[in-house]
Amino acid sequence: MSHLLENLETPADLKDFSLNELTVLAQELRDEIINTVSHTGGHLASSLGIVELTIALHYVMNSPRDKIIWDVGHQAYAHKLLTGRLNLFNTLRQLDGISGFPKRKESPHDCFDVGHSSTSISAALGMAVGRDCKELNNKVVAVIGDGSLTAGLAFEALNHAGHLDRNMIIILNDNEMSISPNVGALSSFLSRKMTSRLFVRFKRETEIFLKSVPRFGKDLVQLAKRTEDSFKAFVTPGMLFEAFGIEYVGPIDGHSMDELIETLQNVSRLDGPSLIHVVTRKGKGYQPAEDNPALFHGVGPFDKTSGKVKTTTGAPPSYTSVFGEYLCQLAEKDSRLVAITAAMCTGTGLVPFAERFPKRFFDVGIAEQHAVTLAAGMACEELRPVVAIYSTFLQRAYDNVLHDVCLQNLPVTFALDRGGLVGADGPTHHGVFDLSYLRHIPNVTVAVPRDELELKRAMLTATTSDGPFVYRYPRGNGLGLQQTDDFKPLTIGQGEKLREGQAATLVSIGTFAETAMDVAVKLSEKGIEIAVVDARFLKPLDQELLIAEARRTGNIITLEENVLAGGFGSAVMELMEKNRLYPRVMRLGLPDEFIQQGSHDELLKLHGLDVDGLTEKIAEFLENN
Amino acid sequence: MSHLLENLETPADLKDFSLNELTVLAQELRDEIINTVSHTGGHLASSLGIVELTIALHYVMNSPRDKIIWDVGHQAYAHKLLTGRLNLFNTLRQLDGISGFPKRKESPHDCFDVGHSSTSISAALGMAVGRDCKELNNKVVAVIGDGSLTAGLAFEALNHAGHLDRNMIIILNDNEMSISPNVGALSSFLSRKMTSRLFVRFKRETEIFLKSVPRFGKDLVQLAKRTEDSFKAFVTPGMLFEAFGIEYVGPIDGHSMDELIETLQNVSRLDGPSLIHVVTRKGKGYQPAEDNPALFHGVGPFDKTSGKVKTTTGAPPSYTSVFGEYLCQLAEKDSRLVAITAAMCTGTGLVPFAERFPKRFFDVGIAEQHAVTLAAGMACEELRPVVAIYSTFLQRAYDNVLHDVCLQNLPVTFALDRGGLVGADGPTHHGVFDLSYLRHIPNVTVAVPRDELELKRAMLTATTSDGPFVYRYPRGNGLGLQQTDDFKPLTIGQGEKLREGQAATLVSIGTFAETAMDVAVKLSEKGIEIAVVDARFLKPLDQELLIAEARRTGNIITLEENVLAGGFGSAVMELMEKNRLYPRVMRLGLPDEFIQQGSHDELLKLHGLDVDGLTEKIAEFLENN
Repeated sequence: MSHLLENLETPADLKDFSLNELTVLAQELRDEIINTVSHTGGHLASSLGIVELTIALHYVMNSPRDKIIWDVGHQAYAHKLLTGRLNLFNTLRQLDGISGFPKRKESPHDCFDVGHSSTSISAALGMAVGRDCKELNNKVVAVIGDGSLTAGLAFEALNHAGHLDRNMIIILNDNEMSISPNVGALSSFLSRKMTSRLFVRFKRETEIFLKSVPRFGKDLVQLAKRTEDSFKAFVTPGMLFEAFGIEYVGPIDGHSMDELIETLQNVSRLDGPSLIHVVTRKGKGYQPAEDNPALFHGVGPFDKTSGKVKTTTGAPPSYTSVFGEYLCQLAEKDSRLVAITAAMCTGTGLVPFAERFPKRFFDVGIAEQHAVTLAAGMACEELRPVVAIYSTFLQRAYDNVLHDVCLQNLPVTFALDRGGLVGADGPTHHGVFDLSYLRHIPNVTVAVPRDELELKRAMLTATTSDGPFVYRYPRGNGLGLQQTDDFKPLTIGQGEKLREGQAATLVSIGTFAETAMDVAVKLSEKGIEIAVVDARFLKPLDQELLIAEARRTGNIITLEENVLAGGFGSAVMELMEKNRLYPRVMRLGLPDEFIQQGSHDELLKLHGLDVDGLTEKIAEFLENN
Repeated sequence: MSHLLENLETPADLKDFSLNELTVLAQELRDEIINTVSHTGGHLASSLGIVELTIALHYVMNSPRDKIIWDVGHQAYAHKLLTGRLNLFNTLRQLDGISGFPKRKESPHDCFDVGHSSTSISAALGMAVGRDCKELNNKVVAVIGDGSLTAGLAFEALNHAGHLDRNMIIILNDNEMSISPNVGALSSFLSRKMTSRLFVRFKRETEIFLKSVPRFGKDLVQLAKRTEDSFKAFVTPGMLFEAFGIEYVGPIDGHSMDELIETLQNVSRLDGPSLIHVVTRKGKGYQPAEDNPALFHGVGPFDKTSGKVKTTTGAPPSYTSVFGEYLCQLAEKDSRLVAITAAMCTGTGLVPFAERFPKRFFDVGIAEQHAVTLAAGMACEELRPVVAIYSTFLQRAYDNVLHDVCLQNLPVTFALDRGGLVGADGPTHHGVFDLSYLRHIPNVTVAVPRDELELKRAMLTATTSDGPFVYRYPRGNGLGLQQTDDFKPLTIGQGEKLREGQAATLVSIGTFAETAMDVAVKLSEKGIEIAVVDARFLKPLDQELLIAEARRTGNIITLEENVLAGGFGSAVMELMEKNRLYPRVMRLGLPDEFIQQGSHDELLKLHGLDVDGLTEKIAEFLENN
């Protein structure tokens, strides 16, 4: 079936292919990608959109000598298939399988690990400098989407690349969207809206001038017309890049193999930094994905023929959707509430909010730093901004949280989605550092609800907070608790004892509470009775309750879905130390390493954080008492 | 003397001033600023450069109803003097005095707290949205330097401001430098280098066209000439901003009061976002500062008449200069070593390196994120980049450290300057979070040398590290240890016992070691003998030594110049917990609050971290044993 692909050993083999064979190969790649992702789930639409571009790149370049850096990297499936990973492709995004993103450890053809957006130009520039220091002449190519270009990091790199003037190629993969449709001035630039704006001004100035000179009749009219045309051609999307000192080529059709190859060959000969503007269609070649690229951006398993995504019927609503729905209810009552997302309207569950309150909804593009500082400005003017963002992406705005929000103690709320392990996206996307990177910032309150009802209570609590407030919740479905509207706000810094027991106190934070209860039952079967406390707040901690428990049982066990270094368990130990209490403590959580991909359950088990693993560890800890 | 300034109660009083009086006032402001800063030290050159702009802004705007947001904020001295702080101005940057930066708590005229660069446009946009939600019509003005515009955050905000189209004014204060002379494409744009580049292309196209039409003799030549002129006028520095949908006005002379006032009045009437390009001269009106604006950017006390900076004669070299000098020595021996700074060549001590190794020195502008990811790219190509950066500014690249460097375990070295309390710059600049925000990142090694000799040993150690390596050192002078070249690299993760004692072990990290020894002597005088250990490494800790000490004395006291939450002391407790040891622990360090400005000694004393305070705390801790 895929006989071209199957017989391809290295991308160098492509050089012997005819144009016709390359086109057949494109179809084979699409079939393989659609087939596999329909089973494994993954980033489908982006990968389908650049099949031709990927083939052309490997046809023209000499990887791994030439470096191809994929921005974000979720579009690199065709690249993986062309570089010796066909036989492993069915393990995509699975535990111990190949990653959904480029990984240096996986292949010499993956030259930079990615996952977060907009790093490719910086990395490519660094590699170009390294190459020049070694006096080599290999090519360095960054492939970046138009969405990724809205991030400040990409701008910093463009600015510096223009300044340094090294040989490098930037390929702008313009599919007119980041994950959701694109926002901002840059996008209007690319779509030529800008052209018309500048053109109006030029035309006005030309007219003033023409009125000032003697008339030549028809010829001058023609001259004026030609000047206009020339100007229109001149003010291309490329003007922005040329302004940075980067040679602009394009736009070219990203699905035309021969145009791609010819352009890449020509641009390879240029000196200095250049940018090729390639226009592609997300989901290209698979109609359901072309029709709904946002759905097929990151998608679960689906039926290949119908394009219908397989849903688990009867599953409770996700935390994300509970957040999105309840935020609308809160916004009904409080006109100061506004919502901000950084290009993740769908992912953070803000679609209902955006529809119901379009004037109070702000999608800033992939620009997490700006999202947070914008919120700080809004809060100064009595608005109550809610920044909905994934835990892993708030890492990009750490200083904005600290310096712009917390230093001024402004009432900005962070809806921190995807806290904890996220599963198949792996190490670049796990939200397992947030408890550590937030906890040491003064003035912030951090709630970590244990279920969807508690999430809503935390959200209600945040609306009356005078300072920064974070509620952190995981990817995935809630417990299916009845969606009562009869609940009260939380008391800040108050935990809850869920179970009595004398041998020890297991203090969990967040959705680990359910596991903690299961562990307590298991231990009880072994004759060990432990108390279970839901801490509810990372900061401030429930000092009274925790001290009482430490005094009562003398054994404190903490449980968190976060790295252990500087996390929740450390906060509990700090509380004890501050009060000069020295109970026996065992902290349970994630080790000091980057956690690989895999299902949530698999990863917990792997690290001994499933019910069995935890039960065993706790029993052992108490036996050695 | 300063009779206009002295009689000014609010900035509204300015509205009755004549143009001549405004000019006299400018001189009074300059005299006051030069006079005060010559005693207190501070940011002189930037503040002198925008005296006229500040007066014009307050003349045209109605603060605090209209919002003026000063980017970075070190240029706001004239603003402070015009808004009721003349009598407090002699307390500038002193303990309990007025801040060197705008502070909301200090005055209603300070509408956003700043310190780090490039936040002003985001904040202003947020305030503009807030205003529109409240259906008010006040003005919002961001004043940002050309240096600050190179940061990605500013770009993200410009992009979004163009998209949202709210009424707001951005004033680009163009003094052709950030702190050091500016770099990057943006700066060539502003300096019109870009104009000529684009112009060459336009001219070429025009010529091709002219050759294709019948000749009209002299008139057509004139026409072509006029078209060229029109184009030259059109391709202004403003093109970039207009491309973002932001109306551009300028450039105007930033020292011409009437031009400033007229322009501000006109632009205030425009709808949508607009940008006024104001050209100023750093240090304007004080010859020594005009001649050497980099020196007078942030300056210590100086002699007003001669412009000579007062130096403490005989003081030992600063850690910064020890770093800068020794890096040159290392670079002599290792051609892979390159240095990167984010617009802080002087501040980080890299001037000698830049002079001796110009091709291996990279100043990326105010672009910390790019600096780090660029280094990651370089490290992939076998270079050994050293990113020299202040602790407080590395906060802006937290995710780049985590996601681009540590996840790939790349050999990037971070020379983390200004770790700990920095003194007069206050809460926005203290480097007191780094131990907490670095420690939980997998793969990183963090050394915190106790003196300048140990710094050099740490630097030597870093050159052979296979992964990310941080050495953190403070602002200020070293101990004056003999600059021997006869030293060995450190053994990673090995601490050093500096003193024996039975009652307890005081484990300090970094330059607190000297204090720790003094404390031990004081305690000894009281009959309490404690051991002193220099941890040397935050990560990995010296497990063997610390466990042995815990077993030996049973009392572990930790000491760090960092917030206690998640810091060094917590790391020590984590180590004990991991080994199921429960010694009595007391952690000493900074509390969970933003620390105000003041001298290093004053701040330590204030928080009980001077020798007396520490001695007292430790004695009490041991008494209650």
